[in-house]
Amino acid sequence: MELRIRSAKPHDMPSVLQLIIELAVFEKEPDAVEVTTEELVEAGFGDTKQFKCFVAEVENEIVGMALVYFRFSTWKGRTLHLEDLVVKEIMRGKGVGTALYRKVMEYADQEGVKRVNWVVLDWNTPAIKFYEQTGATILSNWWQVEMGQHALKKYLNKQ
Amino acid sequence: MELRIRSAKPHDMPSVLQLIIELAVFEKEPDAVEVTTEELVEAGFGDTKQFKCFVAEVENEIVGMALVYFRFSTWKGRTLHLEDLVVKEIMRGKGVGTALYRKVMEYADQEGVKRVNWVVLDWNTPAIKFYEQTGATILSNWWQVEMGQHALKKYLNKQ
Repeated sequence: MELRIRSAKPHDMPSVLQLIIELAVFEKEPDAVEVTTEELVEAGFGDTKQFKCFVAEVENEIVGMALVYFRFSTWKGRTLHLEDLVVKEIMRGKGVGTALYRKVMEYADQEGVKRVNWVVLDWNTPAIKFYEQTGATILSNWWQVEMGQHALKKYLNKQ
Repeated sequence: MELRIRSAKPHDMPSVLQLIIELAVFEKEPDAVEVTTEELVEAGFGDTKQFKCFVAEVENEIVGMALVYFRFSTWKGRTLHLEDLVVKEIMRGKGVGTALYRKVMEYADQEGVKRVNWVVLDWNTPAIKFYEQTGATILSNWWQVEMGQHALKKYLNKQ
């Protein structure tokens, strides 16, 4: 199996969106994906680049992807956030995920960031074990908070 | 008490750094802050702006700040991340935090983001209650993962 990891191009975005949806299904939120291919192309390759994406290719077919962007930690400075790392279900267990993960870490090192951050679901034990084996730290005492657009408008008395 | 919330300027960064350190002490990580005033000025006001900062002023003195930047959700699209919101200890309980929080939400609304995200420590019950009262959702099942620079280089066999 010849595996190639490369930077994504705009024409890869339909495949990337399929992988995003596959991850949402795995994370038990099949209806959570509102993003479209057009939005991914604009956000990733338009005037203001909002992310960088890597894809894993086997025989010219995209079988995985990792999507990252920079953040700013007031404690450490510039960091890299790994938003998604997905491998097609039928291609799991073949080293594709590890290759993408390594590529992300190499990119972080090249960019000289102070830290790489991401999140994991508490029940995803295989992922947690993998991350720990690579030297990452799991922080279960920091909880995510979110205010969606609907709640935001309600808070601002706009609806 | 006349409270004014405004966008931060480069000359506010020494006061902002003091507030960042105050928050780190509150969060029981007094030695975690590695960022310098110069780095804050460069990151916030240089060629590539990595964050936007609001400050709260009372009688020309900075008594609080909120620091935000954009992120990209593969489910929702462009989001705003609230990295820090701090009020000087002696000024707490006077509505400064609420005013900064509201300013952040107004900014998010103006920018048309799909969501505002932040994190909270699991033992910070007053903050959690406040967030919930404003309509935000706490997600305790998503854990943070981080790979610091030292661990990163070790993983890449660079040291």
